[in-house]
This record gives sequence, C-alpha cells and structure tokens, in this order.
Amino acid sequence: MKAFLDACRHAIGAQYVLTAADETAAYLTDWRRRFTGSAFAVVKPACTEEVAAIVRLCHQFHVPIVPQGGNTGLVLGSIPDASNTAIVLSLTRLNRIRAIDSVNNTMTVESGCILQNVQQAAADAGRLFPLSLASEGSCTIGGNLSSNAGGTAVLRYGNARELCLGLEVVTPQGELWNGLRGLRKDNTGYDLRDLYIGAEGTLGIITAAVLKLSPLPKAQRTALAALRSPDAALRLLTLAQMRCNSALTGFELMSAFCLTLVGRHFPQMHLSFREQHAQYVLLELSDSESEEHANTLLEELIGDALQQDIVQDAIVATSLAQSAALWDIREHIPLAQAAEGKNIKHDVSLPISVIGDFIRSTDALLQQAFPGVRMVTFGHLGDGNLHYNVAHPEQETDAGFMAQQTTVNRVVHDNVHSFGGSISAEHGIGALKHEEILRYKSAVEIQLMRAIKQALDPQNIMNPGKLLT
Amino acid sequence: MKAFLDACRHAIGAQYVLTAADETAAYLTDWRRRFTGSAFAVVKPACTEEVAAIVRLCHQFHVPIVPQGGNTGLVLGSIPDASNTAIVLSLTRLNRIRAIDSVNNTMTVESGCILQNVQQAAADAGRLFPLSLASEGSCTIGGNLSSNAGGTAVLRYGNARELCLGLEVVTPQGELWNGLRGLRKDNTGYDLRDLYIGAEGTLGIITAAVLKLSPLPKAQRTALAALRSPDAALRLLTLAQMRCNSALTGFELMSAFCLTLVGRHFPQMHLSFREQHAQYVLLELSDSESEEHANTLLEELIGDALQQDIVQDAIVATSLAQSAALWDIREHIPLAQAAEGKNIKHDVSLPISVIGDFIRSTDALLQQAFPGVRMVTFGHLGDGNLHYNVAHPEQETDAGFMAQQTTVNRVVHDNVHSFGGSISAEHGIGALKHEEILRYKSAVEIQLMRAIKQALDPQNIMNPGKLLT
Repeated sequence: MKAFLDACRHAIGAQYVLTAADETAAYLTDWRRRFTGSAFAVVKPACTEEVAAIVRLCHQFHVPIVPQGGNTGLVLGSIPDASNTAIVLSLTRLNRIRAIDSVNNTMTVESGCILQNVQQAAADAGRLFPLSLASEGSCTIGGNLSSNAGGTAVLRYGNARELCLGLEVVTPQGELWNGLRGLRKDNTGYDLRDLYIGAEGTLGIITAAVLKLSPLPKAQRTALAALRSPDAALRLLTLAQMRCNSALTGFELMSAFCLTLVGRHFPQMHLSFREQHAQYVLLELSDSESEEHANTLLEELIGDALQQDIVQDAIVATSLAQSAALWDIREHIPLAQAAEGKNIKHDVSLPISVIGDFIRSTDALLQQAFPGVRMVTFGHLGDGNLHYNVAHPEQETDAGFMAQQTTVNRVVHDNVHSFGGSISAEHGIGALKHEEILRYKSAVEIQLMRAIKQALDPQNIMNPGKLLT
Repeated sequence: MKAFLDACRHAIGAQYVLTAADETAAYLTDWRRRFTGSAFAVVKPACTEEVAAIVRLCHQFHVPIVPQGGNTGLVLGSIPDASNTAIVLSLTRLNRIRAIDSVNNTMTVESGCILQNVQQAAADAGRLFPLSLASEGSCTIGGNLSSNAGGTAVLRYGNARELCLGLEVVTPQGELWNGLRGLRKDNTGYDLRDLYIGAEGTLGIITAAVLKLSPLPKAQRTALAALRSPDAALRLLTLAQMRCNSALTGFELMSAFCLTLVGRHFPQMHLSFREQHAQYVLLELSDSESEEHANTLLEELIGDALQQDIVQDAIVATSLAQSAALWDIREHIPLAQAAEGKNIKHDVSLPISVIGDFIRSTDALLQQAFPGVRMVTFGHLGDGNLHYNVAHPEQETDAGFMAQQTTVNRVVHDNVHSFGGSISAEHGIGALKHEEILRYKSAVEIQLMRAIKQALDPQNIMNPGKLLT
C-alpha cells in the first residue's frame, strides 16, 4: 500500500493523508460509540478534483472507500469495518457555499458543508433551507443527502431528497458527473440524482448539490394538545391538514409515559394540564402572512378540535419562549429515556391511517412476550414516522433486557412489515440493518438493487458491506 | 411468431391479442399524427399478472415491447417504430382504483386509469390529486408517471414524481416488484421508484401506483397582471412567493404577441386593458381558508406590486366565470398559434433567475439568423418552463420555414444549454430527442444511463429505440 499512499500524498498533499493512530481515531468510531473500525488511512481532499483523483487511485489499487461527512449517522454507515483494508475519505474540507440564487430559490453547496452553516447561509439571503435535525451542528449536507435525511420539517417540505434539485458526483471509477442543475422540470433521462440520494455512499461520492430554498415564514405558532388516544391524534391531523394545509409544519405525537419520563428526569419541565391524559400532540403552524393570522388560524383549529371532542385540553404558546419550552419537552424525550436506562429503539414508518392499530397491536404482542416492558412511543406522526422504543420492565436489569434485543426487534419489525411499514424511516441501513432488510424486501427488489450496484460499482469499492451485502 | 401469439392468446384470451390492421391502427399513430409505426400485435392484458405473463413470453421469444397508456405523448415514446418486430402492450384495461385512504392521503390506482378519473375519484373522497394537464381526459396515470408529467400545478405540488409514493412494476424478465408503499419516509435501499418514474417504459412496466393526495382548496382566485418585461415578471414571482408562499399555485407568463394571436383568431376573447403591454402574467392563488381570505391575499399582492411599479395594470377576476375566461385565454394560445400557421416548438426549462436574459439573448440570435421570425413565448414561469415557440416571418411560407427546423432547434437548444437549462422540461425524450440529448449530456451521464439500462434490461426488449440509443 506504500505506492498507493505515496500517490495519494502526491495528489492532495502529504498532510491530508492521515495514517497515525492518534490522527485517524476520530474518524473510526460511530456517533453513538457502539463500534470502532479500522482504516489504513484517512484521506482529506480539498475539492471535487482531488476527490476524483483519490477515487481513481482507489480504483486502480482496488482500495475500498468509506465516504464520511460529519460521521453522525446512527446505523454504522460512515465508519469502516475492522478489516483495515479501506480508507476513510473525509469530505469535510469540501465546505464552500458555491452560490446562492434568491430568484431561482436555490443554493449550490459542497457536500462537506455543515447543515447548520447551510441553513444560516440561506437565512442570510432571506430564505429558508428547511432540513433540520438533532445533529445539524455537526452533520454535513453530503451525509444528509446520502442517507436521505428526514427530521422535523418533512411534513411540509419533504425529506432531503425533495430538497435537492441537482448533484455533482464522483463515480467509483473516479469520473465526474456534473448534474448540478437548478431546474424544477427536466425530463431528459434516468433519474440519477435520486439514485445517489439515499444510496449511503455505495454508488459514488456526492461532492456538491443544488438545494431548493423556500420563503422564510413570517410567524410560527405552537400548541400542545392533550388527547385520549393515537386515533384521536389521527383525527386531529386530518382536521389540521384540512384547515391549515401547508401551514401545518409540525405534528409530533408523544405518549403520557414520554412526558412522565421527562418530568422525572427534568423536573423543571412541567406541564400545567389539570389532569393526566393518554396522548399529547405538539403541533406547529408556520405562516407567510402575520403573527395575528397565525394566532387566529391556530386558535380556531384548537377551538374546533375541542368542540368536536377530538382534543381534551390544549396549551397554546403565546410567546416564542413558551413555544421553545414546548419543543424542549419533545426534544428531551430521548435524553429522559437515556437517563432512565437502556432502550431498544426502532425508527419505523407506517401508513398514517394504521398507526393507532399498529401501536395497540404491537404493544400487546410485546406485553405478551415481555411482561412489564414500558413503551416510550413518540415521533413525527404527520409523516407516519414513529420512534417506537421499548424500555425494560421496572424489575429487570438493563443488561438482561438488552440481551433480548434481537427478539424484541423481530416482534416489532415483523409487525411493522405486516402493517405495510418500513423498518428504517429516516436512519437508513448502513452496517446495522443490512441483514434485516433481506428478511423484509422481496427477492426481486434485492436483485434489482444488486444489479444496479454491480452496474455502477463492479469492483465493489464504494462503502462495501453497507446497505447491501 | 405463431407460437408466441398462440401463447399470448392462451395467457390473456384471444380477443385481447389484436393483429388485424383495422383493430391495431389506433395504437400505432402518435397523438399529433406525425408518425405511424408498425407492430405485429397489440396485446391488452387485464391485470398485473397478465402483464407479467405477456412480458415473460416476450422475454422468452425476444420480442420487443412498446408499453402504451393513453398514447397522448408528444415525443413518439408510446408507438412502435416501422420495423414490425415489436408488440404494443396496452395498459388501458388495468383501470381500477384499488383503494383510497383519506387519512393517509393516498390512493392506489392501476396504471391504465385515465388521469381525469383519478382526479375525480380523489375529489369524491374530498381530496385533491393535483396533477393536471391538457390531455387529462385521455392520458393514463401510468403514462404520466413513465414520462414524469408536469402540467399546471407543478409550482405548488411538483411533477408526477413528487406525487407518487410507491409503484408496482413488471420487470423486463416478467417478474413482479411490489413497491406499493404508502409511506412518507422509507430509507431502506436504492430509490427504484424514481428510477422507473420518467424512464419512458425502457426499464420495466408500471402496473400500479400509490399516489399522494392533498386537501381540496376552499377557494381559488385568479388575476392577470400586465408588465413591462420578463424581468418584471420575475420580480412579481418573488414578491408573490414571499407574500403567499404555497398559496401561489399558478404563475404563467405570456408575451403580448401571444395575446395578439389569441385576439386575432378568437375575437370573442378580448382583454379590457386600456393600453398594450409587453408581457402578461396569469397568476392563481389557492386558499385553504375562505373566499374572503383569498380575495384579500390577492388584492394586497396586486396592490403592493402596482405600488412597487412591478406591475403596470391588472385584472382581478371577481367570479369563477371571469377566472375561467382568463385561463381560457392562456389555453387558447396553442390553438391560436396553430391557426396562424406552423411553428417550431420548444419545451425548455431554465433556472428561473436567467429567464429574462435567456429570452433576450435567444430572440436576438434567432432574429439574426432568421430575420422576421415571430416569437410565441409563454409558459409556466413559476417552474422555469417556457414554451418557446418560433413562428415563421410574415412573408415566408410554412413549408420554407419548417425546412429549417433543425437549424432553429440548434440555435435554441444550444442557448438553453449554455444557460444551464434543459431541452425537455416536461415532454420527455421518446424517439424524437434521443439524438439531441447525446449533444448536451456528458459522456459520463450517458454511460451511467446505459449501464443502468444494460443491468435491468440486458435483452433490450423494453421500448427499444426510446430515450437511449
């Protein structure tokens, strides 16, 4: 590998080819610190041409490549395996905002740009880049696109896929595909863009993208509604969509137990409802007109829902601080969960209409198999995306329960599948679920995916062992 | 071929395997009656299983397949070539609405459903299926998806691609891929859905789809604004997006000459502007609240635009009849054009911000090369999609001008390309532009497309000669 490394050093400068253990360590462990892989080098090109030069060398020397952005993924997609045969190709030096066009409502960014910087550059131009997720201070837009990231604004703006008009990609042969088109309509061939989006770096390396921007909303309003059941939450969702249409930008379901956990571990976050309710919905409206208009819209919606007995009680935030406090509760659920002990987590999606049935039915199956388990169920109900997490029974230990993870996953995922859902709504497959999808996808689908992988990366050097095996 | 036809008859019934010239004729000529191809049979399966059975026979006997829906395409994509070696596989008997889910806001339809019937079924369930185009009374949803159709609602709702969540596809080997998922989030592998969408039947046959539905708007309002230039229209577009956001559902540009033609050939359609203006914009708002709210929104927008000197004059429709009359003018442009004589038409898209420059620059190049040509420029400005049509000089004959079509196309398409645009915004490639795209796409992109085609259809039996050659 000396010849390969020397050629890399020649191509991008010796200081950007890291081989010392203390320099490479940060690139080899995943975000949740569940696995540490091994790479014989971490290579950090500065621009698209340098990426292409490195990939050509990998192609020539048959060196597997693990592309990496902010390394914040949750499915071990951006770290190498233990074989020490691959390089990590870090895109973080490709961090330029290349252009912003506020009339076309697009921006062209390099894939190593941190999501928060992309959001900020859009805001500086008076526009909204709506993709937003917990790791936005560290994750990169290239990683967001490669994993088709979701987040909190999917209900209104779609996933990362729907926010991208064009891509620049380095192929596994080190060739450059310039698909950086800022067009809303272009019917001139196969949709390569959407093939690379969500491919988790297994078909090529995204080096830049043209992103879609939206107008900045003039006002945002938040409310927390208390309801009897997930089915009532579905009725509220339909009512909100009919009345508010695209002004509805957030619709998050949380069970009572989620709020109990938050109250237990963060006692300063208490809710002022007079009684305990079974379910809560955090809903957010974004308005293009005015504060007053947003207020009226939200108050009329809640009033109507109370009158129709869909909602039992509600808190409407009357200030930005109150609104932030409501979101804070939602965002503290994972933290409260962690404080309570280990959890077996599931990132699933379902047809929205069956979510009530799915929760009832899966809860029952789990109680039968694991009496006393405690369900921490919350998620982006408006997108059909549930974080359906299972906490151990009060009397059981963390370790004892976690040993049964495979069985718990099987119960949940089998039921997701039977309800027509997906076992990975927004986190992807990576090295964590590539065997699981073999159970749920048809042989035809796996064969089609393999044919595409084989056609575009016949050497199998792009992120091998991820997504498909 | 007797053995093949007998097997087809056995599979789907002899009466659905048409070979007599008078029975097949309707399937062999394109919508604009520019070309008549030849097929040794037209085969009309009734359901997905029958489609798969026919395709397996074609695979076995190496018979090329031309999939056909409503046969309303504009690029010769749905008719066979002259070789008489292919069958036409008509999907029109697959015309069931399989399911409507008004909580998940989805419907599952077979690909042979006529678009208007899909719209109607959605409306009957109190929902909107927003895809809308001139041929909606004849085109099928399968054809819409295979060509990623655009139409008049793209600005708000996106192309056909953005309106589809899942597909059922018969592969070129006659296998069935069931990807009929009604999910907003699903990150479990390569995006096969978007690969089949827009592939013009060259990778497989779409037999059914899960479509996304939206709330029905409560009110729609239309206005016609008179402006000095396309640049003023761009300023109006930005203003309208900032003020109205997703309530803006239509934004159509028309030059003065377009309206002159309409007035000349349809004298009953006159506009009541006191003076002649250079450009006109037809804009439409769809409101989820009320008639009053829509009125206020539109009046304030127009008032602001007049005050900022973006708009010179405006007609705001105060009734549904007035609104329909304004849309009528827009929709009569192609008819007025046809009445005036032959035209060389272009369906192009551009980054919205360069449209003013593109029109100025291309107009000048054409006047230089063909003095006296008359530009009939209109289109979906909000999507960057121009119907940039060139009518012959007053003194020249139709025939003399049409003989120069290739040269005119070259001037226009070269300039589209240099402005970063697309030579086919919404009509696709078919058998009409497959050589043209070789000029504008990079070798890398063509090679990627060919690799995918080869991987999924190695026998090249799916719609050969279309899209890629």
